[in-house]
This record gives sequence, structure tokens and C-alpha cells, in this order.
Amino acid sequence: MKNILLFITIALLVLGCQNNSTVKNIVSEEGPKPFPNGKIIDLTHTFSRESIYWVTAKEFELDTVAYGDTDNGFFYSANNFTTAEHGGTHIDAPIHFAKNAQTVDEIPLENLIGSAIKIVVSEKALKNPDYLISVEDFTDWENTNGKIPDGSIVLLETGYSTFYPDKIKYLGTDERGPDAVAKLHFPGLSPEAAKWLVNNRNIHAIGLDTPSIDFGQSKLFESHVTLLSKNIPAFENVTNLDKLPIKGFSVIALPMKIKGGSGGPLRIVAIL
Amino acid sequence: MKNILLFITIALLVLGCQNNSTVKNIVSEEGPKPFPNGKIIDLTHTFSRESIYWVTAKEFELDTVAYGDTDNGFFYSANNFTTAEHGGTHIDAPIHFAKNAQTVDEIPLENLIGSAIKIVVSEKALKNPDYLISVEDFTDWENTNGKIPDGSIVLLETGYSTFYPDKIKYLGTDERGPDAVAKLHFPGLSPEAAKWLVNNRNIHAIGLDTPSIDFGQSKLFESHVTLLSKNIPAFENVTNLDKLPIKGFSVIALPMKIKGGSGGPLRIVAIL
Repeated sequence: MKNILLFITIALLVLGCQNNSTVKNIVSEEGPKPFPNGKIIDLTHTFSRESIYWVTAKEFELDTVAYGDTDNGFFYSANNFTTAEHGGTHIDAPIHFAKNAQTVDEIPLENLIGSAIKIVVSEKALKNPDYLISVEDFTDWENTNGKIPDGSIVLLETGYSTFYPDKIKYLGTDERGPDAVAKLHFPGLSPEAAKWLVNNRNIHAIGLDTPSIDFGQSKLFESHVTLLSKNIPAFENVTNLDKLPIKGFSVIALPMKIKGGSGGPLRIVAIL
Repeated sequence: MKNILLFITIALLVLGCQNNSTVKNIVSEEGPKPFPNGKIIDLTHTFSRESIYWVTAKEFELDTVAYGDTDNGFFYSANNFTTAEHGGTHIDAPIHFAKNAQTVDEIPLENLIGSAIKIVVSEKALKNPDYLISVEDFTDWENTNGKIPDGSIVLLETGYSTFYPDKIKYLGTDERGPDAVAKLHFPGLSPEAAKWLVNNRNIHAIGLDTPSIDFGQSKLFESHVTLLSKNIPAFENVTNLDKLPIKGFSVIALPMKIKGGSGGPLRIVAIL
């Protein structure tokens, strides 16, 4: 009887070890799965003549330099382009609204690559184009999901990316020039929530699916000033946020590396 | 004696299981370390008036739109810029040399993000600015490291990024215009090696630290045609390859998403 019990014990231990060995093989012998081991989602609008820019900013323009067969027998195509730094899916570098803060080439890659969370306000924002994302929107998220983890990239989903590139629905106006500024209507982050974030949480970057982190009717751009003064960059005109979970994913946001730039075109992806 | 042997066996199995449990804890209970869990290295040159462009291409130009305190009390800076798609650290989209192939916005993200290897030819290339990276350079690498894994991003280190942005050392000439093309001298990938790669290996992308995947004296750009026809994009003017190991790292190469573009500014980083 004693030997039978010992046999059963050994058998169970051997089986247990085999299961653990499988785990060990995955980690140390076969190595981790090659990166990326999750689905990649592009959060970037394409740049074209339709891309949405601030009503006073130079829009994207692509000029064809070559397209067709060459005398040497091979096909060749190439273009030049002109653009404002701030248009389409782009980044605001801290110096955009904060003197002596980081230029776009100086933003540490650690701020641009890492774990992310998403806060959804689309139900309220789609009913109110002047909606201001509030401190309560963040505390509501935290009541369900726990404190926003240190070093998070925070994405704000207003639902407005579905309107892009319809200027009237997305910006509030399709007019251009200084007089059109007063006609801008789209949701943004309230100055109070921006202050709450920098004073109470430690985030690496913030992004949203509207043209600006401050709402369309902002005159003083206080959320920009608050965030950028603390070297927290902002991603604007992002898309596909509805394809992301509310936590447990990573973001890679790589801007064009313009020396001294106040921002620039951004390619931003999520890995689930 | 039999019971002692059984006791020893059980003891060894228990100890073995404890070691494996530690591994299991790392994987399934604490979860993997948050991404990225390795050092990030920027492989990108900054864009400025010094950036190196093809001798016939429009160079990078940044125009200041605003810089200083506004009447509303906040600081504001913003710029416009103009550039050729192909200059500085950039990507060649397949359509650059292959009609009906992918435009830059169509390149699958799976080609741009993944496991990478590095092949070093700097000892030969630094002695010979017309050096052509050969099939033998690849088979030599494989003799030491095994077959280039399917889906690899392949980086070629010639050592030329240390010359950037010195045009005479990096390009072979500081002249510009059509007559300067014949004076270009820098290493590249031989047409034979490009054919060997597409016919015998399954790579996702290729990159190097010179202005072009074809060497400076190329007239027919055969390596471009061979690779791009198979929808294998090329990263050009990359830097910091000397900071990478020869295998066991990942690359994230995110180009500006220009609709219909033949290429564009690229931000490329490695994660060790």
C-alpha cells in the first residue's frame, strides 16, 4: 500500500514536471515567440489632398517628379511633398506650446513606445461637438480598471475619426483662414483634466481622434500648455481607436525626426 | 533501500518541479514584462538642411511659421517643410521601381515590424567605396549563424553612416544635378545577391547605411528592381547599425503614410 502511494505520488510529480517542462521549453529552449506576437492595428490616416489640417495651416501637397518607364528600361516613380508639421495624423512636440521644451527629434523613444490604455467618451462626444473630456471620465475608467499605470500612453476615443475627412462633421467647418477658427467645433480634453493628469498620474504620452487635444472652441490652448510643459507629447487625428481594447495593448508612435521640429507627421500603430 | 531510492527520486522530482514553477510564474502568473522589454536604439538620421539627398532630388527645407509668445500669453511654434520622398532616412516603397507594386501606404505592417538580422561588410566596404555586397557575404553569415530566418528584416552594415552628413565621404561628391550622378561612389547590394535573396530566402524588408540599395555607380538599379518587384521594401540612409548585434533583435520601421507615395521619411528603431 505504502509503495502504491509512493508510485502514485511519483507519477503525479512526473506529470506535473512534464507540464512545467513544456512551459520551460517555450521560454528558454525555443525562445519567446518572435516580435510582434499580437495583431498590429494602424492608427494612422493616410496623407493626401483630403488630409485635415488646421484651418490656417498649409495643407498636404504631393508633386509628381517621375512616373513611368525610363530610357534605361526600368520603371521609376518619385514625388516631392510640402506640408505643415501639424496636420493629418501628427504629433505635437512639447516645444509646440512650451518654450525650451523638447523638439520632436528630442522626444525620448520611451515616451513613444509602450503600454497603453483607452478611455471612451464617444457616447457623450458624438452628441456634443464641444464636449470636454473631464476628470470624471478618467476616474470612471479607474473605478472599473484600476489606477492608470505609470508610464501609460493614454488614448481618448471620441468617435470623431469616423467623420474624417469630412471637414464639416470633423472640424465643424470647411472654411479656411483666420475667420474660420471661431467656427471650429470638435471635442477635446478639458484644461482641468489635463492638470489632473500631470499632477496626479505619470503618463508618457496622450492621443486622440480629433484635430487637437484642446477642443475646437479653445482660445488659450490650456490643455496643450499643461501637457507639453511637462514634456508629455500629444498625438492628434489618430484613427481606428474603436478596434482597440480599453487596456492591455501597446502603442508604437514614431514621428518624422525633424531637427528642431515642433511636431510632424506621425505613424502610429497598436499591438494587441 | 528501495524506499530510500524512492525518497531520493521524489526529492529530485520536487526540486525539479520547483525550478520549473519559477519559470511558469514568470510567464503565466506575473505576465510578460511590459513592452518594450529591451533597449531601444534609434536607427534614424534627423532631417535638416544637412540631410543627404540624391544629387538630383529636392532637399529638405524647414520654414518657420511661428516662434514666440502670442498676444494671448502662451508660447507657440510651428513650421512647414518641403522634401523629396527619397532623402535622409527613408523607405523605398515597391512602386519606386516596380509598376503596379505596393505604394508606401500599402506596405503591410508585418513587413515593417519584426525580427531582424545584421550582416557586417564594413571591413571590405570602407576600403572600397564601390563595394558590392555579394552572395558570399550572405552565405558566410549563414555558415556561422544558420539560415536567415523566414520573415527577417535584413540590415546591411557598410560603416558609411559614420561619414553622414559629409557628402564627399558619404556620396563620393558634394556636387549636385544630373552631371553629379556619374560621380557617386558608395557601397550597395550586388544585383546577384538581390536575386539570390528573392529566389532563395524569404525576407520581409532590407535596409542599409548608404544612400541607396544599389551602389553609387549603378546605372540600371537592378537590385532595386529585383527586390521591389517582389514587394520587399528597402530602408536607406539608416544609422547606428554598429550598436546592434548580428541577430536576436527586432526592428520597427514606420514610414510616413503618404497615399500613393513611392516612399517617404522613415522612423526606424531597433529593440534589443
